[in-house]
Amino acid sequence: MRLGVCYYPEHWPETMWEDDARRMKALGIEQVRIAEFAWSRMEPSPGEYDWGWLDRAVDVLGAADLQIVMCTPTATPPKWLIDRHPDVLPVGADGRPRAFGSRRHYDFSSPSYFEASLAICTAVAKRYGQHPAVAFWQTDNEYGCHNTVVSYSPAAVQRFRQWLKARYGTVDALNRAWGTVFWSMEYRSFDEIDAPVATVTEAHPSHRLDYRRFASDEVARYNRMQVEIIRAHSPGRPVAHNFMQLFTEFDHYDVAADLDIATWDSYPLGALEEQWYAPEVKAKFLRTGHPDFASFNHDVYRGMSKLPFWVMEQQPGPVNWAHWNPSPLPGMVRLWSWEAFAHGAGCVSYFRWRQAPFAQEQMHAGLNTPDNLLDVGGSEAHCVAEEIARVEAHADANAPVRGKIALVWDYEAKWLFEIHPQGADFFYPRFAFEYYSALRSLGFDVDIVSAHAPLDGYAMIVVPPLPIVPDDFAARLKASGAHVVFGPRCGSKTESVQIPSNLPPGSLSSILPVRVWRVESMRPNVTEAVEGGYARHWRDLIEPAQTTVLARFADDHPAYVQADKVHYFTSLFDDALTQSLFARIAKEAGLAPTPLADGIRVSRRGGLTYVFNYSNDPHIVDGIGGDRFIIGSREVEPQGVAIYRA
Amino acid sequence: MRLGVCYYPEHWPETMWEDDARRMKALGIEQVRIAEFAWSRMEPSPGEYDWGWLDRAVDVLGAADLQIVMCTPTATPPKWLIDRHPDVLPVGADGRPRAFGSRRHYDFSSPSYFEASLAICTAVAKRYGQHPAVAFWQTDNEYGCHNTVVSYSPAAVQRFRQWLKARYGTVDALNRAWGTVFWSMEYRSFDEIDAPVATVTEAHPSHRLDYRRFASDEVARYNRMQVEIIRAHSPGRPVAHNFMQLFTEFDHYDVAADLDIATWDSYPLGALEEQWYAPEVKAKFLRTGHPDFASFNHDVYRGMSKLPFWVMEQQPGPVNWAHWNPSPLPGMVRLWSWEAFAHGAGCVSYFRWRQAPFAQEQMHAGLNTPDNLLDVGGSEAHCVAEEIARVEAHADANAPVRGKIALVWDYEAKWLFEIHPQGADFFYPRFAFEYYSALRSLGFDVDIVSAHAPLDGYAMIVVPPLPIVPDDFAARLKASGAHVVFGPRCGSKTESVQIPSNLPPGSLSSILPVRVWRVESMRPNVTEAVEGGYARHWRDLIEPAQTTVLARFADDHPAYVQADKVHYFTSLFDDALTQSLFARIAKEAGLAPTPLADGIRVSRRGGLTYVFNYSNDPHIVDGIGGDRFIIGSREVEPQGVAIYRA
Amino acid sequence: MRLGVCYYPEHWPETMWEDDARRMKALGIEQVRIAEFAWSRMEPSPGEYDWGWLDRAVDVLGAADLQIVMCTPTATPPKWLIDRHPDVLPVGADGRPRAFGSRRHYDFSSPSYFEASLAICTAVAKRYGQHPAVAFWQTDNEYGCHNTVVSYSPAAVQRFRQWLKARYGTVDALNRAWGTVFWSMEYRSFDEIDAPVATVTEAHPSHRLDYRRFASDEVARYNRMQVEIIRAHSPGRPVAHNFMQLFTEFDHYDVAADLDIATWDSYPLGALEEQWYAPEVKAKFLRTGHPDFASFNHDVYRGMSKLPFWVMEQQPGPVNWAHWNPSPLPGMVRLWSWEAFAHGAGCVSYFRWRQAPFAQEQMHAGLNTPDNLLDVGGSEAHCVAEEIARVEAHADANAPVRGKIALVWDYEAKWLFEIHPQGADFFYPRFAFEYYSALRSLGFDVDIVSAHAPLDGYAMIVVPPLPIVPDDFAARLKASGAHVVFGPRCGSKTESVQIPSNLPPGSLSSILPVRVWRVESMRPNVTEAVEGGYARHWRDLIEPAQTTVLARFADDHPAYVQADKVHYFTSLFDDALTQSLFARIAKEAGLAPTPLADGIRVSRRGGLTYVFNYSNDPHIVDGIGGDRFIIGSREVEPQGVAIYRA
Repeated sequence: MRLGVCYYPEHWPETMWEDDARRMKALGIEQVRIAEFAWSRMEPSPGEYDWGWLDRAVDVLGAADLQIVMCTPTATPPKWLIDRHPDVLPVGADGRPRAFGSRRHYDFSSPSYFEASLAICTAVAKRYGQHPAVAFWQTDNEYGCHNTVVSYSPAAVQRFRQWLKARYGTVDALNRAWGTVFWSMEYRSFDEIDAPVATVTEAHPSHRLDYRRFASDEVARYNRMQVEIIRAHSPGRPVAHNFMQLFTEFDHYDVAADLDIATWDSYPLGALEEQWYAPEVKAKFLRTGHPDFASFNHDVYRGMSKLPFWVMEQQPGPVNWAHWNPSPLPGMVRLWSWEAFAHGAGCVSYFRWRQAPFAQEQMHAGLNTPDNLLDVGGSEAHCVAEEIARVEAHADANAPVRGKIALVWDYEAKWLFEIHPQGADFFYPRFAFEYYSALRSLGFDVDIVSAHAPLDGYAMIVVPPLPIVPDDFAARLKASGAHVVFGPRCGSKTESVQIPSNLPPGSLSSILPVRVWRVESMRPNVTEAVEGGYARHWRDLIEPAQTTVLARFADDHPAYVQADKVHYFTSLFDDALTQSLFARIAKEAGLAPTPLADGIRVSRRGGLTYVFNYSNDPHIVDGIGGDRFIIGSREVEPQGVAIYRA
Repeated sequence: MRLGVCYYPEHWPETMWEDDARRMKALGIEQVRIAEFAWSRMEPSPGEYDWGWLDRAVDVLGAADLQIVMCTPTATPPKWLIDRHPDVLPVGADGRPRAFGSRRHYDFSSPSYFEASLAICTAVAKRYGQHPAVAFWQTDNEYGCHNTVVSYSPAAVQRFRQWLKARYGTVDALNRAWGTVFWSMEYRSFDEIDAPVATVTEAHPSHRLDYRRFASDEVARYNRMQVEIIRAHSPGRPVAHNFMQLFTEFDHYDVAADLDIATWDSYPLGALEEQWYAPEVKAKFLRTGHPDFASFNHDVYRGMSKLPFWVMEQQPGPVNWAHWNPSPLPGMVRLWSWEAFAHGAGCVSYFRWRQAPFAQEQMHAGLNTPDNLLDVGGSEAHCVAEEIARVEAHADANAPVRGKIALVWDYEAKWLFEIHPQGADFFYPRFAFEYYSALRSLGFDVDIVSAHAPLDGYAMIVVPPLPIVPDDFAARLKASGAHVVFGPRCGSKTESVQIPSNLPPGSLSSILPVRVWRVESMRPNVTEAVEGGYARHWRDLIEPAQTTVLARFADDHPAYVQADKVHYFTSLFDDALTQSLFARIAKEAGLAPTPLADGIRVSRRGGLTYVFNYSNDPHIVDGIGGDRFIIGSREVEPQGVAIYRA
Repeated sequence: MRLGVCYYPEHWPETMWEDDARRMKALGIEQVRIAEFAWSRMEPSPGEYDWGWLDRAVDVLGAADLQIVMCTPTATPPKWLIDRHPDVLPVGADGRPRAFGSRRHYDFSSPSYFEASLAICTAVAKRYGQHPAVAFWQTDNEYGCHNTVVSYSPAAVQRFRQWLKARYGTVDALNRAWGTVFWSMEYRSFDEIDAPVATVTEAHPSHRLDYRRFASDEVARYNRMQVEIIRAHSPGRPVAHNFMQLFTEFDHYDVAADLDIATWDSYPLGALEEQWYAPEVKAKFLRTGHPDFASFNHDVYRGMSKLPFWVMEQQPGPVNWAHWNPSPLPGMVRLWSWEAFAHGAGCVSYFRWRQAPFAQEQMHAGLNTPDNLLDVGGSEAHCVAEEIARVEAHADANAPVRGKIALVWDYEAKWLFEIHPQGADFFYPRFAFEYYSALRSLGFDVDIVSAHAPLDGYAMIVVPPLPIVPDDFAARLKASGAHVVFGPRCGSKTESVQIPSNLPPGSLSSILPVRVWRVESMRPNVTEAVEGGYARHWRDLIEPAQTTVLARFADDHPAYVQADKVHYFTSLFDDALTQSLFARIAKEAGLAPTPLADGIRVSRRGGLTYVFNYSNDPHIVDGIGGDRFIIGSREVEPQGVAIYRA
């Protein structure tokens, strides 16, 4: 457990650097991330490098005993590169190149950019790869931010054709896999295939999903190039990337597979405002964030990180980029920090050391205000630093986190439901999140895993809508011995985006013996009554076959069926019903659900239990002797944290 | 009365065809539509035709005694044609060509496409024109679908200039007719005139309406080319086109004038979701559709069909293309089928035989599920087939339908109000539909007719907002002897989109002697009280002149006036008031209104009366002896149908 | 005080002109504006002028003793000019040229258009500059209408680079001022700088604000060219331009500085519908307009006009261009006319003489209907003409208007908050308007002034959110001796769009000694309780330093502080609280607030007091003897006007 910070020496006079480094250290910060947007300072003109300032910055920070996370600067190619190679710019769905003047203005498929990236990464890695202060690396910055994964450039189309050829071998195989006979969309060669964009009505879903898979693969390919350069020139230093919450245009598992550390950038208030939550939920958690949003992401990235995951950027105050930007309540920066550690984080790094008074993010708070006074977030970071020492006095404080319940989270599912929703508001992350939130409300720690992950050792595995399942998924689920809960639409598509020949749930029918003979999506002002609650959005209409029907809709269609240890919800139930069904299934699985009060969340790591109070009322921790509290006490104040030992 | 189905032999292994044909026949299906999207299979490469598969399909279907509706495949030009002639693609209002990859990606004005269409249509017509199993033809598929009538291509502009020259003779005449002196928009030659698009603020309304008229004429011209080819090579076989509900970008009367059969594609649930209905109406009729929507369209196409109209595609279960896609209640496929026959249909043809497991419409139900089991819609179709036999035992079951009330429906009115609404939510079809719905709620059968149609024989003629009236309209209305009801905005524009020199109602003032000296549109949260109800959307403020004022607004402006047999509503009243005024006028016209219970509708054809129950409660048919029921009984269950003789 | 009208002789047969002129005069109209859209009639083909018709029109109008406001016709370049010089067309943010076919289709930066404008303006000015009937000039028409100020054409970018060079001298200075080191946006030369458009995420705010300043300067430059031509060829005739309500894309102060008369086009009902008002407010004032909207604009343009300001176009009935277009209540055309005079207008000119039956504005009412009968607006204009005589019998009826309260109104603030809102609904005009409306509800006359205007003589100065303040602003405010009220966000940015180094309120801290250490924006469904009411949208979180905290939020942050005569609202309070705080401060400033009944407004000019009743109930003027009424009486009917002497 340690704290870090993001710092931009190029934004400040050199005269400030030494004091900054000293104050970081005094605050309890141990590592500092630099340089991810500094290309125009590293290479002010083509091929003319200027390392002097960065050498000095690295030396100053190193001299203060700060460990440096060095970044490649590829998220912001400079103007001269764009002017020399306009094909670096990605092309939007409207057919226009996106322009220079902000960030991430590059096309993952551009050969010019690949070459330019290779050159600058090599230069940085060579220069600093062996510097003693450089302890870690970050590749690029927030892949996928601002919807920059999918490009419709000629270069992308060219590489897509190659990708298709590699995948299908012959164009006849592709025609068959996609079903292009429909609407005379048959191709005679791979060269006839364009990007699935600007069509009169929706483009072919198989074509679209393959384009998304291709675009995701391009990100992984690009990142792998950077990782390889870094490993070559800076061996032994862990390589990270900072993923961004729900920027799901590419498969994070694939990119993480090449990294040592999966990190993510946590902005609980910005996320609340920008995500799907209803206006009244946004008002309720206005200055705290939703109690499960950061946790969900901690569990996502913990699951894909070889070393303990990090929060690379932690919101320290109001941000600038949401539609509205409220101020966090006092205590929340501390709470968020501890929440990350409770979920297994190795580091929480605040973004940024000091608020910049210029440019796009001038309204983004830092640990210090632009006039260089410590802000509230800075004080709370200091408090956390001191508390870490008390917590780490306990031997297993840094133990890995492992839940008894797994929830399957899948990027391809997001793409497929986006392309092929069948109901306009079918938003995959919302459904996965609702299941997660119900489990957390019952007091459980949850592992979030890929559908391809090993599943042994779990008592319960929850599968939100997962249309395309791995061939061996049913077998692995069965072998796990866990109770399995499927949401609707599981197994509803083949790899090629067709309906399985035996109808959904396709290959899952070996463990879930039902036939989904029809489905229906429902508009937002419609619900269907079901015993104990109601259903929303969607219904799988099934022949229950060899399953037991445990709940029915008012019109008699099965709502919840069970076969051995496999449970199947044919719809998305209201929160209370979802929670009560999960509680019942968890008990069957030998687990002990403990429903928590509104706004209270609990996590366990090593021998310690962490209690977080997102509500406006004090919370009393029952049944724990006061002497067991390391941080806080039995009465957890609003926005408060308590930590006690087992 | 007979049943048909849409079938795609190219989507399935040849080994299935014979069984499919046998099962169709066993289900009671007598005709099968094929080939409308099969161009890439007919002509896999430029000029290389492959008829083998289609020959075999036609033979198999013919051998099973199914009558074939053969289609031209022009709705889906193949990729090779697009690559050879990129000018085939229509150009959107954004100036970009719309891309290959779905359907209807062609420009009606493209010379290349006209030529290519001529070639493929000739080839198909020659090949199958004399085949004994081919009984009917369909041109193309759903003209106007996906907003594909209006194109802004250079070819379209070129032909528009010729069209203008033919219409106006000289550019001076055009300048005068349009009034281009306004804002210095005068032209010196036809070659200076562009498409009315991408202007700084709204383009000139006369220019815009002429562009819409031109675009509509291009559809008729294109269809006529196909019809002429078919008639040349397949004489004696009726030619049809399948119109689509409220795809009003072209004048359906003009296209129908060249056909033998006007058919339409009926999707009651998709239509409910996608049309203007309020969310609570969409929830109320979620799984039945609106009781008047299909009927309205039946009556529209009956009015323009030389032979009895058809439903070429009948929704058989959930569809894939609406924002939300619920499942029809059991019984609705049967109810919809009978409703079509009650309104005069000659055939109801289900779309499609079997749900395809691939491509864009894989979530569109068929009579059979993708695993080839009969679906609910299939069972109900079978039920209808058996019932047809019982109904046709009555001599005049197939009699033509003719109402005593006519409602005028006009495509140009739709375009004009779209271009020149004066109130943002002035949606012509909604207003026509509300009048229709009020009349149907009073138990009347309604004919829907063109403003150019003969009007003799009607007792009552209802004219929803009709801005441009034919020169002889007033005379024909008067000569009909009917009571005439005008909605607001009638006669408000000249042919050239100017205000009539005597102010509205322009040439109608000979029978409606008022002066509309001002109008106002009203925002959705504003209504105006009127005796007996309230008004919405719009008010014509009038000098009543030689009319009698029968109702006034709270601010004393006339709301409803009458002169002899001519009635004039100056606004759009609430449903209840509209219904009560129509009832009063109908009585004056010697008709007998019989207000129906909520969700109940009644139609008459020959000596039979059809009762449809769209509600959730059983309905009792009063005063009809039980022995008169051919189908059903005096108690009509929810979603039920009853048919009794006079 | 006099009346005018807008007239288009080119729209009507010459045979009507003489009668039109006679009837204008008889109605009480003294001036007539002509020719602003007549380019295609002045110059039907390149270089071929046709002055005959206009000579005759000018003669006919002059002969009727009407004073002519002659216009340059540059708002509507003819088609032949566009075809010859396509670069005249402005380019939208989507990169596409906006097309010919409506109006204002020109780019202020186009060299071709500058030259063509120079030629046509010179021709018109030479032809009519000395004509005895031509008394005034209008340049162009409604700069900024239809969002036509900002263009992204190559010509605009070229001129922008020159503008930047003139402003910053060196590109290094620009890099420093903007802070381009952020995200590697550094430039090596001015030629590398493009327009800030189409970027991946938001473009740099300094770049964006400079582009907006540049675009505004281009309008002033273009207008100045026209003014200089007119002054050269028609010396002594005042030059005007007709600004449009809240078309704030350019700085109206800058353009007005070159004019003699600032005029504006007043459409109270269209404005109500199109502006930010809530739906219930739009319904409440549906047929009267908001009681403060026209007044606000009168006060804006009075403040920037050298001669008494005019209403160049006054709404005479329903318009055509709002989403919904209701009819004004009887009396409102009269009320609006008197309201303008009460606020200091020299002329109220109605748009237009007669409703045109053709083209885009055929549904826009005139003083006469298209069939040439006097409309309600015409009758009311006649009534005003007669009343003017009675009012002008009082010596100081035409006295200049001067309030004791100034409100600062700023165009740059609008641009900056648009570019850099930090809260999605932070709409500057709304906040300025709410302060204005609160002051008017207290019975005050208000001057609206630039932040650069002299401030002496005011008792109270209200400063709505003003992010960038002139260097000498604090000093001038202090020197004025007035009580000053600052809204939030004042002084929050430097000229270069950076946070001031001492944090907000930056240079205002000399008179407002606080430190704004953090801000927050709040979503629409969130408010913050404050003593006496609640706050919305925004909070400046402050260290109150040497100020006195007079009100706090529920969470203890200061809401309202005072230091000497300087008052500071850290948020935007509800209307009632704003009004009560203003009343309290006004009393401190020695003023006498008199809260008015709902819908009642009062203005003073010379020795006369004007009372306007926007409500639906009669209003009794208390304490004024009936003999003092010149117009009306103590009982002011709904939509009525009363004028009494002191």
